[in-house]
Amino acid sequence: MKLYSYFRSSAAYRVRIALNLKNLPYEYMPVHLLRAGGEQLTADYRKLSPDAIVPTLVDGDDVVLQQSLAIIEYLEETHPSPPLLPAAAADRAYVRAIALQIACEIHPLDNLRVLRYLVREMGVSEEAKNGWYRHWLENGFASLEARLSADPRTGTFVFGDTPTLADICLVPQIFNALRFKIDLAPYPTLQRLYEHASGRDAFARAAPGAQPDAQPDAE
Amino acid sequence: MKLYSYFRSSAAYRVRIALNLKNLPYEYMPVHLLRAGGEQLTADYRKLSPDAIVPTLVDGDDVVLQQSLAIIEYLEETHPSPPLLPAAAADRAYVRAIALQIACEIHPLDNLRVLRYLVREMGVSEEAKNGWYRHWLENGFASLEARLSADPRTGTFVFGDTPTLADICLVPQIFNALRFKIDLAPYPTLQRLYEHASGRDAFARAAPGAQPDAQPDAE
Repeated sequence: MKLYSYFRSSAAYRVRIALNLKNLPYEYMPVHLLRAGGEQLTADYRKLSPDAIVPTLVDGDDVVLQQSLAIIEYLEETHPSPPLLPAAAADRAYVRAIALQIACEIHPLDNLRVLRYLVREMGVSEEAKNGWYRHWLENGFASLEARLSADPRTGTFVFGDTPTLADICLVPQIFNALRFKIDLAPYPTLQRLYEHASGRDAFARAAPGAQPDAQPDAE
Repeated sequence: MKLYSYFRSSAAYRVRIALNLKNLPYEYMPVHLLRAGGEQLTADYRKLSPDAIVPTLVDGDDVVLQQSLAIIEYLEETHPSPPLLPAAAADRAYVRAIALQIACEIHPLDNLRVLRYLVREMGVSEEAKNGWYRHWLENGFASLEARLSADPRTGTFVFGDTPTLADICLVPQIFNALRFKIDLAPYPTLQRLYEHASGRDAFARAAPGAQPDAQPDAE
């Protein structure tokens, strides 16, 4: 398998964690989102990814997949062990809902292209842009904290004591928040879950700083 | 089953279509998002939905689910026939990716709470707000049009000739775009898919105007 990735992309980070948790080796194909014009916009990459976003997973000669959560469900179906979703349908829906709350309610509002659009196209100040970032992140984290601190299913991981799709989404989102210097003190459950998961080998090897295209001074 | 819904919520609209396609009867529980303060913010509704968003599906006494795509995957697992995903893993990932492209790349940027935040908190003009809406919608639709017009899997529906999760996400997004007077002429494939799917009974009965809480003059 080949994973087209950018070290700092949260969506690529999710897929890297999933591949590691399932012990699936893969070839790392860097796509530099920020280099002159953006490598994701080249005609070659657009053949793989018409929407010009990372990650893209290529499996064999024919399977070319986009969208991190669709890729992870594919890995779950084609390589079921170890599972990244619980066994019971209601529990699977709970884990997927946490993942989607991050992937649909927080991440899309705070990703790079959106922050850029606010500044470049709408002429928003740096301060208003940062306020926007904090608003959606803190709203989302407060909701997740309320849910996870109260739900009896919360263990050392989001669901019990093994990592699932929910942790795979939570860790990159918190990593991103820490880069933006968001204070985690109001979210002790999220902080505990993050510290536990991010220290595990499969998560640590997927972290942005551990990737071959990592650049400490990138945007 | 009970579905907590708001007639104009795209996410609730998705779940309504899925329930109809699977011939599952349900009790419609209206949650008025706009009424004084927002009914979704009441303590009673927050017991069901800590993040105060619709839809919420309640199945029996114990199962309370959020996030439209997680709910639909739950329905798919608990009521597999008729299926809303293809059989092969790569095809399932393809359909899920189209659904997620809408649910993660377009919808979160153009939904009501975001448009309100732009105007009320950031003081953005009505014109700039509409430009924002069009930007993310047209970007997303152009990408979907390129993909679906080229992919041999496109049939009378997004994947072949039966409705899937992809159509369930596409129809509400196009319905929303039409409300905002987006011209579909640049997206002939999307327009054809929309016209075909939205005319089917399961889709038509799920449309906002057909809901018990429909109000033609609502925001």
